[in-house]
Amino acid sequence: MTKKISGLLAAPFTPMHPDGAINTSKIPAMVDLLVNNGITGIFICGSTGEGPSLTVSERKELAEAFVDAAGKRLKVFVHVGHNSLADARDLAAHAQQTGADFISATPPAYFKISSTDMLVQSLAMIASGAPELPLYYYHIPSLTGVGLDMVDFLEQAGQAIPTLAGIKYTAPFVYEFQSCMNYAGKKYDVLYGSDEMLLSALATGSKGFIGSTYNFIAPLYRELINSFNSGKLEAAQALQLTSVDIVRVINKYGGLRAQKTMMKLIGMDCGPVRLPLRPMDAQETMEMEKDLQQATFFDWASKLDAQPH
Amino acid sequence: MTKKISGLLAAPFTPMHPDGAINTSKIPAMVDLLVNNGITGIFICGSTGEGPSLTVSERKELAEAFVDAAGKRLKVFVHVGHNSLADARDLAAHAQQTGADFISATPPAYFKISSTDMLVQSLAMIASGAPELPLYYYHIPSLTGVGLDMVDFLEQAGQAIPTLAGIKYTAPFVYEFQSCMNYAGKKYDVLYGSDEMLLSALATGSKGFIGSTYNFIAPLYRELINSFNSGKLEAAQALQLTSVDIVRVINKYGGLRAQKTMMKLIGMDCGPVRLPLRPMDAQETMEMEKDLQQATFFDWASKLDAQPH
Amino acid sequence: MTKKISGLLAAPFTPMHPDGAINTSKIPAMVDLLVNNGITGIFICGSTGEGPSLTVSERKELAEAFVDAAGKRLKVFVHVGHNSLADARDLAAHAQQTGADFISATPPAYFKISSTDMLVQSLAMIASGAPELPLYYYHIPSLTGVGLDMVDFLEQAGQAIPTLAGIKYTAPFVYEFQSCMNYAGKKYDVLYGSDEMLLSALATGSKGFIGSTYNFIAPLYRELINSFNSGKLEAAQALQLTSVDIVRVINKYGGLRAQKTMMKLIGMDCGPVRLPLRPMDAQETMEMEKDLQQATFFDWASKLDAQPH
Amino acid sequence: MTKKISGLLAAPFTPMHPDGAINTSKIPAMVDLLVNNGITGIFICGSTGEGPSLTVSERKELAEAFVDAAGKRLKVFVHVGHNSLADARDLAAHAQQTGADFISATPPAYFKISSTDMLVQSLAMIASGAPELPLYYYHIPSLTGVGLDMVDFLEQAGQAIPTLAGIKYTAPFVYEFQSCMNYAGKKYDVLYGSDEMLLSALATGSKGFIGSTYNFIAPLYRELINSFNSGKLEAAQALQLTSVDIVRVINKYGGLRAQKTMMKLIGMDCGPVRLPLRPMDAQETMEMEKDLQQATFFDWASKLDAQPH
Repeated sequence: MTKKISGLLAAPFTPMHPDGAINTSKIPAMVDLLVNNGITGIFICGSTGEGPSLTVSERKELAEAFVDAAGKRLKVFVHVGHNSLADARDLAAHAQQTGADFISATPPAYFKISSTDMLVQSLAMIASGAPELPLYYYHIPSLTGVGLDMVDFLEQAGQAIPTLAGIKYTAPFVYEFQSCMNYAGKKYDVLYGSDEMLLSALATGSKGFIGSTYNFIAPLYRELINSFNSGKLEAAQALQLTSVDIVRVINKYGGLRAQKTMMKLIGMDCGPVRLPLRPMDAQETMEMEKDLQQATFFDWASKLDAQPH
Repeated sequence: MTKKISGLLAAPFTPMHPDGAINTSKIPAMVDLLVNNGITGIFICGSTGEGPSLTVSERKELAEAFVDAAGKRLKVFVHVGHNSLADARDLAAHAQQTGADFISATPPAYFKISSTDMLVQSLAMIASGAPELPLYYYHIPSLTGVGLDMVDFLEQAGQAIPTLAGIKYTAPFVYEFQSCMNYAGKKYDVLYGSDEMLLSALATGSKGFIGSTYNFIAPLYRELINSFNSGKLEAAQALQLTSVDIVRVINKYGGLRAQKTMMKLIGMDCGPVRLPLRPMDAQETMEMEKDLQQATFFDWASKLDAQPH
Repeated sequence: MTKKISGLLAAPFTPMHPDGAINTSKIPAMVDLLVNNGITGIFICGSTGEGPSLTVSERKELAEAFVDAAGKRLKVFVHVGHNSLADARDLAAHAQQTGADFISATPPAYFKISSTDMLVQSLAMIASGAPELPLYYYHIPSLTGVGLDMVDFLEQAGQAIPTLAGIKYTAPFVYEFQSCMNYAGKKYDVLYGSDEMLLSALATGSKGFIGSTYNFIAPLYRELINSFNSGKLEAAQALQLTSVDIVRVINKYGGLRAQKTMMKLIGMDCGPVRLPLRPMDAQETMEMEKDLQQATFFDWASKLDAQPH
Repeated sequence: MTKKISGLLAAPFTPMHPDGAINTSKIPAMVDLLVNNGITGIFICGSTGEGPSLTVSERKELAEAFVDAAGKRLKVFVHVGHNSLADARDLAAHAQQTGADFISATPPAYFKISSTDMLVQSLAMIASGAPELPLYYYHIPSLTGVGLDMVDFLEQAGQAIPTLAGIKYTAPFVYEFQSCMNYAGKKYDVLYGSDEMLLSALATGSKGFIGSTYNFIAPLYRELINSFNSGKLEAAQALQLTSVDIVRVINKYGGLRAQKTMMKLIGMDCGPVRLPLRPMDAQETMEMEKDLQQATFFDWASKLDAQPH
């Protein structure tokens, strides 16, 4: 049975210079911020990290910098999914060589995969690049368009991929998530990826969460989990509602681009997003800041000066 | 503030003769089964009741028979949504006249509604037919294709529709559901409609649930809610997982058609589904029965001889 | 082999009073306009006629009025599709009784039909109501969500439905349309329904066209067909381009609601659209009129004083 | 005004060894086949060339080999679209350096572009890598999910991208295609990309066509165009119908994977497809061959021994 990962794992933004070039010099401070605010792992070069917008060599450079900055204080997942499976396998091999703890991958998405069998074969090819690293399938149908049944997937992939460890499950279908968590005597580790529904996942038995808002409001979620675990349900509900309010602001301002700007608002400037995403201008940022204030964002923001947790 | 409805509400199947004609003679026994298994309300002529496949006069006949059989033991919602808003308003007026407690409506779906404004105007027209009955908007984007933001909807509809009471929310987006429950100081009643995620809704503060599986495995959900409320979280999780397993069997056999057959399996034959749904044959029924047995369906089935609750 | 219908068939708007009640008094003049501008048939109570927004009794009243006004000068198709197949069959029986020439039906669309088999069974039920009238399946996947392969459909439906005459094919997939026209030695009559691609259909061998813009710019399409048939390809292209320009204006102003307003602009006021469509106000109408002028709409508009064709 | 490209342009398959490695040694013979069968240009590393499944260095190697093999006998388009715009720009620069004639690009598709503005900015970035090569936007919404209005696109992109030459338009919406061809006094070159609707495009005035089936049944389309141009409309229709029949066989066997196998059947083995596509086995190939025979594929296949055209 796969060892289960628990706690909050953040999917860090990729720090960039104003011109869009990556800026690895920011990474040590970013990682310290996460560690000091109680984050237990990171998931790099995924959707939040703008992974698909990066070149293979940029992704490798980022993997090295994050693994180095983590210094074993955090578990490091490297997302290696790519439209080109040869590139994905190459990234997997590099992740293993670099000392990452896990790999994860979305499926190729230009040619849409429509059968579980081809999904498994594609992931097996990726896994072959990193035979010593556990693999988590990254299920995010809203971005990949691949929405195959995940219980069927576990059944077929479990036989074909020796390193399969579980799923990063980013979708609101908690019933399927629950089936996956309980499949084959809880054989696999299934991490939940929709921050605005953390409480739903928690109630069904989830222990580990990967998300983007854990980058900047980790204290809210730590408190939420503590409240729930100590039987303070109403407090947990109120905290989740605050998270939902903040996510509504994020969505109003365009999702990822808004989130990256929020890092600047808490004092950890990660630079702008890269094309094809649209950067935010000063006016939008100011308006968003007001909306965030109203949603009590700053009361729950991760603290630059938090003490090691 | 709207008075909140609590407990389990079932969306009954429409009983039919083998030739597809409606068979109202079955309704008293169906309602007794629900009452005796702890159901607190019914939602008739909705998706589960094959409402869109019925004529207006059949829907009126059913409304009368269900209101009559309920005899105030259950709250009665009459679903009045129709592609023709004139028909929907007519059904609303009839529901009020018949003594139903609430109306609910999906939006017209042939001409897709793509603005909150037109959704509100359409519902206002329906509501005008039953000025004394509280109206619940029936949000089920997977069937109607209308997936507008529900917080925006409450904001606009609250001003335009005096009888607006809330939403029957049938979608997995628990974060939006939670926002709706908490909108404007919990002004509206928002009932959750995805049985396989009841625990998620419960954890976020939901008190009332409308669904199809409450027709035949009410004991499971009563026990689930009791376990959760008395702090037995693991028991609640195990029960939700059993519900999910049963729903997977239902989906394997085609959804609604399978569910209607399950009524026969618990001893309350409601007849076949009507076109455009495909009836189940004996062979499929036998195979499904085996799968249901394995999912422990019969351990949790509603009992014909249950004592009034 | 089915007798083929040729020429331009219009799908008339349903004339309404300012309050949305139907106004059959307008129908004789509407039909005269069509006849005098060279239209060879009408398709009533379809999408353009807001059929799904009408009650069954309104649809019957309209069928009677249109058949009466046509007085054998035009072929009359009555669209009888309905979410309730019992209503659809009832409408079919009424169409036959009224003296209509053909029936046509979309499939039920609340419960989405996902197999050819169920589509055929559903249409067979409708057809049974009008055993003497040829049936055209109304294929319009953008509105019904039912996009099954139409060659497969002809193969299965041809055996199960004795009155199947063909398809009203409203989709841009001219390759599938061409396959259907040529299926089984041109056994079926397949009418094309995308006005803005009439030339594409014409080039592949189509002879009959049903559409909404034939209500108000019939002279353009008559000239287009004449040009094409007499080898004046560039003239035909220029005319199709004008049609496309006009359709772009229509889409800019919301489709059906804009088209119904265009009837008023050519002097044949059919009243407003009914909910859930949004009526046009005076300001929008004025702006649209300018855009239509620029698209040379008024040069090609059907003439109230045209002589019988 | 952009110089217009005319005739049939093929999107060649990427030749691979049985293990999926690219096999550039096949390219000279592939190009000769195309030249000798009347093809006027090639479009490499696009969808048909499995471009998104290739690494950047493989794509560069292919560009060099194809440009070299073409030896100015064919116009060469290099498709440079990539989820990473930095990679896309790099590929564009390489294409220019290599001596290609044109570049073309799909938009990034992991992060879906939902505004014309961001589409234009993204393409402008790509174009900046190859300031001397004309750029064709590759519009294929069925694969990219980006279905923005193309007239709006031309309006905005024309101002922002000096090298914009036109669009490779791969969609069935001939009305939009026609608008684009005629936009701003036919300023842009718009090439049609749906082989099974070539006749529709031809009828609306199209002169240039890019597609995958031109790889193996070029004689059919040359005859089709000749027939149409010399007024033999029925012959042209019959030929298009044969093309449609062949495309139906291709779709039955899974699209691209089937097409690549068809190259082997005409004597020009290009090897298998690469993951995530599923290779064809011998049994499927045999069955497909029978279906192709019935569709008269071999009567129209490109000839290995055709004389230079």
